Amino acid sequence: MPRYKLIIEYNGAPFCGWQRQSGFPSVQQTLEEAMEQFAGHPVRLFCAGRTDTGVHALHQVAHADLLRDWPEETVRDATNACLKDRSKGDYAYVCVLRAEKVPTSFHARLSATKRRYLYRILNRRAPPGVEAGRVWHVPQPIRLDTMRDAASKLLGHHDFTTFRSAHCQAPGPFKTLDRLDVTGEGEEIHVHAAARSFLHHQVRSMVGTIVQAGLGRWSADDVRAALEARDRTRCGPQAPACGLYFVGVDYGEPVSRIEAVPDGGSEARPEQR
Amino acid sequence: MPRYKLIIEYNGAPFCGWQRQSGFPSVQQTLEEAMEQFAGHPVRLFCAGRTDTGVHALHQVAHADLLRDWPEETVRDATNACLKDRSKGDYAYVCVLRAEKVPTSFHARLSATKRRYLYRILNRRAPPGVEAGRVWHVPQPIRLDTMRDAASKLLGHHDFTTFRSAHCQAPGPFKTLDRLDVTGEGEEIHVHAAARSFLHHQVRSMVGTIVQAGLGRWSADDVRAALEARDRTRCGPQAPACGLYFVGVDYGEPVSRIEAVPDGGSEARPEQR
Repeated sequence: MPRYKLIIEYNGAPFCGWQRQSGFPSVQQTLEEAMEQFAGHPVRLFCAGRTDTGVHALHQVAHADLLRDWPEETVRDATNACLKDRSKGDYAYVCVLRAEKVPTSFHARLSATKRRYLYRILNRRAPPGVEAGRVWHVPQPIRLDTMRDAASKLLGHHDFTTFRSAHCQAPGPFKTLDRLDVTGEGEEIHVHAAARSFLHHQVRSMVGTIVQAGLGRWSADDVRAALEARDRTRCGPQAPACGLYFVGVDYGEPVSRIEAVPDGGSEARPEQR
Repeated sequence: MPRYKLIIEYNGAPFCGWQRQSGFPSVQQTLEEAMEQFAGHPVRLFCAGRTDTGVHALHQVAHADLLRDWPEETVRDATNACLKDRSKGDYAYVCVLRAEKVPTSFHARLSATKRRYLYRILNRRAPPGVEAGRVWHVPQPIRLDTMRDAASKLLGHHDFTTFRSAHCQAPGPFKTLDRLDVTGEGEEIHVHAAARSFLHHQVRSMVGTIVQAGLGRWSADDVRAALEARDRTRCGPQAPACGLYFVGVDYGEPVSRIEAVPDGGSEARPEQR
């Protein structure tokens, strides 16, 4: 029973998020049904980052076990063909970029050692036209230097309770934030975040908070104090889903890496949204 | 009665094109109604390039006369606010990037001396996910060098009947193509086209034809022969609207430049779609 690793891209707008949800179109259900159509048997997908409603992915990773030993190109092309077929003339908004045969020891979620997100802010007076639904529009001028200062206060191993959704299913609030870089890209500001895993709504909560610093409403010390308060009510206004992109995953050895996590492996458990 | 020049951006997907059309949402009607809402009187917009159904604009130019002498920022912000208001919670997909007071001798269409388009092709096996509806997907590998060779055959002053829609309202088929550059941008191929004006469907017809050369199906000489045949049936398959972006306009003196056009001014008349 060969296992396939899939690299997946999607526009999150038409979906209720990655995970199946009764009565709503999810990325997971859309892809599973397309794969079942060509494989001829039930298919179950496991992904690296269970994105929320409206969150996009440029490089999501998932795996599935298929009964037949299909060529990798066939898995990619047949899934994409069935996705197109099922979208009934509209765009599918989700596609398989690559399919690779992997050992069954590979697990898209459990083997992941780092997850990367990009957050796109359109920082100009006029709202988005072409990019509507794909960026967060902030019309007031944002200062990159103060936003960067604030971001630096969040790096490292912390209790991120302040930046954690009430619905977070993670066993604990501790995470290690490896990267929170802020770059200017023309009219856009990009925030690049990386960690072994994130709490639910952590990236959007951090982005919303450091933007307050960029707008001059909070100091970098206010951001540090909010982190240290470990209190959800101290978080800045959460940035909307439409600006968030899941952009990559690093993989290591699944079992040994889970054992190596100091706080008992919570960072590799399926809390990743 | 002050005249305002507006720089406009839009995603063409939800619109039947620039021009008002009974029973369909147009960019023109959407913008005119938003401006009428804040100005309190009928507003008529004239644009540089009347884009077709599904064609996008990063830099459309239009002008309108308003009864009151509003500050430029007010015209921009009030129009955008009314656009947001009228979109009823959905994205407006159209916005005013800038408003400038101009002399009444300025005419967005008649004063235009050059129009620029960008055509985006996604050239990879997998269809677009995030970019669905914003690029033309060509899964077979395209060779940039042969596409460039073919493009070079179309430069200059020609009878472009082969690349002209049957619905074109231009008085004649002669146009001067100043630029048709092909660049590779990662997984995308961009075609940059510039001319004083274009025939209806000319850019999409030229792009569709030179892509045939990039795919190895036509030689550059086949493209030249198609041009010289002055026969619509010799055109390659027309590229779809979703990959086309109106990206800029140059302006000169309106009256003198129209008189200076050698073939009697046909290139500056309102045939531009």
